[in-house]
Amino acid sequence: MTKIVDDPEAFASSALAGFSRVYGRYVRLVKGGVVRSTAVPRGKVSVIVGGGSGHYPAFAGYVGPGMADAAVAGEIFASPSTAAVARVCRNADHGGGIVLGFGNYAGDVLNFGVAAERLRAEGIDVRIVTVTDDVASAPPDRPLQRRGIAGDFVVFKVAGAAAEAGLSIGEVERVTRLANSRTFSFGVAFGGCTLPGAKEPLFTVPKGMMALGLGIHGEPGIRDTDIVPASDLARLLVETVLAERPAGAGRAAVLLNGLGATKYEELFVLWGVVESLLQASGVDLVAPEVGEYVTSLDMQGCSLTVMWLDEELERYWLAPCDTPVFRRGETLRTQPAAARADVEDEALRFGPASPASQESARCLAGILDAMVSVLGEAEAELGRIDAFAGDGDHGQGMRRGAGAAREAIQRAVAGGAGARSALAAAGDAWADRAGGTSGAIWGLLLRSWSSAFSDGEAVGEADAVRGARLALDDVMRLGGAKPGDKTLVDAFVPFVEALEAGHAEGLPLKAAWHKASAICEEAAQATAPLVPRLGRARPLAERSVGHPDAGAVSLALIARTIAERL
Amino acid sequence: MTKIVDDPEAFASSALAGFSRVYGRYVRLVKGGVVRSTAVPRGKVSVIVGGGSGHYPAFAGYVGPGMADAAVAGEIFASPSTAAVARVCRNADHGGGIVLGFGNYAGDVLNFGVAAERLRAEGIDVRIVTVTDDVASAPPDRPLQRRGIAGDFVVFKVAGAAAEAGLSIGEVERVTRLANSRTFSFGVAFGGCTLPGAKEPLFTVPKGMMALGLGIHGEPGIRDTDIVPASDLARLLVETVLAERPAGAGRAAVLLNGLGATKYEELFVLWGVVESLLQASGVDLVAPEVGEYVTSLDMQGCSLTVMWLDEELERYWLAPCDTPVFRRGETLRTQPAAARADVEDEALRFGPASPASQESARCLAGILDAMVSVLGEAEAELGRIDAFAGDGDHGQGMRRGAGAAREAIQRAVAGGAGARSALAAAGDAWADRAGGTSGAIWGLLLRSWSSAFSDGEAVGEADAVRGARLALDDVMRLGGAKPGDKTLVDAFVPFVEALEAGHAEGLPLKAAWHKASAICEEAAQATAPLVPRLGRARPLAERSVGHPDAGAVSLALIARTIAERL
Repeated sequence: MTKIVDDPEAFASSALAGFSRVYGRYVRLVKGGVVRSTAVPRGKVSVIVGGGSGHYPAFAGYVGPGMADAAVAGEIFASPSTAAVARVCRNADHGGGIVLGFGNYAGDVLNFGVAAERLRAEGIDVRIVTVTDDVASAPPDRPLQRRGIAGDFVVFKVAGAAAEAGLSIGEVERVTRLANSRTFSFGVAFGGCTLPGAKEPLFTVPKGMMALGLGIHGEPGIRDTDIVPASDLARLLVETVLAERPAGAGRAAVLLNGLGATKYEELFVLWGVVESLLQASGVDLVAPEVGEYVTSLDMQGCSLTVMWLDEELERYWLAPCDTPVFRRGETLRTQPAAARADVEDEALRFGPASPASQESARCLAGILDAMVSVLGEAEAELGRIDAFAGDGDHGQGMRRGAGAAREAIQRAVAGGAGARSALAAAGDAWADRAGGTSGAIWGLLLRSWSSAFSDGEAVGEADAVRGARLALDDVMRLGGAKPGDKTLVDAFVPFVEALEAGHAEGLPLKAAWHKASAICEEAAQATAPLVPRLGRARPLAERSVGHPDAGAVSLALIARTIAERL
Repeated sequence: MTKIVDDPEAFASSALAGFSRVYGRYVRLVKGGVVRSTAVPRGKVSVIVGGGSGHYPAFAGYVGPGMADAAVAGEIFASPSTAAVARVCRNADHGGGIVLGFGNYAGDVLNFGVAAERLRAEGIDVRIVTVTDDVASAPPDRPLQRRGIAGDFVVFKVAGAAAEAGLSIGEVERVTRLANSRTFSFGVAFGGCTLPGAKEPLFTVPKGMMALGLGIHGEPGIRDTDIVPASDLARLLVETVLAERPAGAGRAAVLLNGLGATKYEELFVLWGVVESLLQASGVDLVAPEVGEYVTSLDMQGCSLTVMWLDEELERYWLAPCDTPVFRRGETLRTQPAAARADVEDEALRFGPASPASQESARCLAGILDAMVSVLGEAEAELGRIDAFAGDGDHGQGMRRGAGAAREAIQRAVAGGAGARSALAAAGDAWADRAGGTSGAIWGLLLRSWSSAFSDGEAVGEADAVRGARLALDDVMRLGGAKPGDKTLVDAFVPFVEALEAGHAEGLPLKAAWHKASAICEEAAQATAPLVPRLGRARPLAERSVGHPDAGAVSLALIARTIAERL
């Protein structure tokens, strides 16, 4: 939903004006649109595109050498007026005639059509090509009744390149029509879009559902279905679009387009599968594009477009261009591909180990197993605590790290590793898989603890206590936190001190650990600051008043879990 | 909220893999990150950047000639592991040493720091520069405690250009530190972000509020305030960032960054004001950028970054580069700016008119005034009806068009126009301002109707009836709809026929219009199709079953309004 707005009525024109200020090196603002601000050879055919606003980068973002000469922009989702179309065309006419390109909507057909009549009466040769790529909007036997969606982008790219190459108006029109006739798109949406200033979205998609085949102005789709995993969505898009593959078609320009509120990361996840499926169907992908090219305000969803290439279309698809949102061609000296092999990590190998140490390793694996269960249960709560002062991912990171550590120690045990090697492997896996601060800290903690053990002997009680001190020292040295910083260190210091004291008094490890674990819990709770502070690690922690540090809480939780297993 | 996902745990790595497939001409995937796939001169300093995932295009999108040599990517919002940092660095080392750049977060400081120690032990010269641009995260006297947000982008751009220029590692480090010390950012958020697979957002911003100064991982902000209009938001951002302007600083690289769910159109609206305010403060803007450069999943909000330039920083800021998301330098032959004046519309001028026709024009202005009131009241309902088969903007377009027509006719009346010229001007204004199909139709309708009038005489009853027929003919000829197409034509035809019949029977205009208006209303209701259909104009109108056409309903509403005023 739009949040940055002054006057909702002026939203589209203000956005266009702001765009023109950023991209003055490409465009000049005229009332109702933008035209190239750069010199254009006299006699070149002008490619002028347009439609309603709310589809950025369509259409103003396409203006520049190698693509469009101008873009006409209506109000949000509304066709520009006849007067606006005519005005922009007059400002972008270079004497070679005009190819007017727009999506096939009644309002645009009417306004661009009437404008074209007026311009012809003024002596300008104007040709109209409507884009009709959306396979969901009419059956294959009525292609001219289909509306235009993201196919606009690929068709206009070809048109612009053909005009830039110096083709006559008849030829540019022919190539543009050819491009459109070989372009097919299909889209889905997960959520509706809201006009600036409106209180309600134009339409909604029920929670957990997706709408198939809907338009880019909130027009309803063919039907709603349950949201499916990315792989199934990829299959649906690819199969639907490939259903209209022309005989003999093999090479294709492909566009995976985001509708506005779908993140690039999501598109990339989807693309991994889409590309594989297309390749498996024998499609040669030529310079595919993934991103936002035709949006629909804040609609959530995406579409897949395929333009089947012949030699001519491929040439124009690949031709250089330079627009605010899309550039082809070299900006630096040609960069050949590098021939370089991956530098691999060292392989995991374990040295010889005694049966006693192997038995200790199994024991440690059991402890890791218990940690994974406890951290799994506590994940949401740890996240909640973390969210007061941090980014709320602590629980997720701990579960992920512990899970990776368990897997690694089990693999090590199966491979005959001793206690030291097995625990070190667990620490490395934790750090590598969990990421974040806590991942690094726990990786260090386990690896340093393991350095008190050996692969030749069973882990003794004294070794366990000595390991705790080594772990604490490394965590403080490399982690950089001191007692009082309201981190895990605040709970770790009293734990280790109590463990050492109990051991020195002659208590068995289980009893000493129990005592230390209780002290650790108290200390963790005490990390809840009672007054606002501006600390080093988390300068915005004022809001964490009354809430303990999530890392300290995790440590206490793990200490207690181990106490119960010893 | 993320909708396209297979395994949430694998989201970040799948996204990176998909990204690498799209951009194989720039990058090669290694475990935990991407490195340039293009040849790099031996001995060049490597600029390696990174951090958690969920910030696309940060950081993988920055990899390419002229900018980064590699990017390390952790899990969503989690620092990459030490092992991953070390691995990516080994794969991107060219023998000239490595400058490691990342935002100032505890987890990154730890993991990159430990990795740097390991790499130094392997004989690689590694320098660390943390980005600390966020003025909200610590006071000015503690700049090193500030975290890094969108300033990452401008700092890494400069670092990459310095390395590409062949500077030594010491010099690249110095320039990067200089860039960071002169970079200041401040951001706001309107809504939180949700981790892939999570059910709840990491944080929320209360409805109608915005959070000032919050981080890019959902860290809480300084405080929440009411959402303000775009102009006030611009002032807040500019004043906060300029508060730390260094003495003598004048030229600046400026970045207006979207956080992920804020539309480009919104950023452009904001930019119009931001640019003016900066210029008013004496800032010379050098190649400013507006768009998504450092995002935070689907967080709604934006930030403003200013990097104060000296001659050296400006050179590196402007240097060519070629990455998946950011390119500088020519892709086509140099395009000089065009010297071309705007082609203006013809000025509105009215010919001489008789007092009687001027009186009729005043009468028509009164009718337009009544139409504006009625359409204002009916806006929401018309939008609702339209949303069943169209894009729901019909009510908005009608109100906007009628408002513009009223303004134009009032201006015409004030300028002494006669009835014909005044109504024609109203029609042109309607079409120009409302856009869309209905705007064009109503523009035509009024202009054609006016052609039955003259500026020399009062409008007679016969003229009014003849105008209706002329309007209907033009709407059908140029609009292309026939009776039965379930459009306004279905209600307009019986209206005109009934009006003509009543007039022919000798009824006064008021009575004939009343009768025709009632018939028009019935016909409009009858446009509600009783069976699903695949029509030409709206092929997806299955859902409109049981709902009348919004254009027909508007016509009936206007006909009734006029009947009441005659």
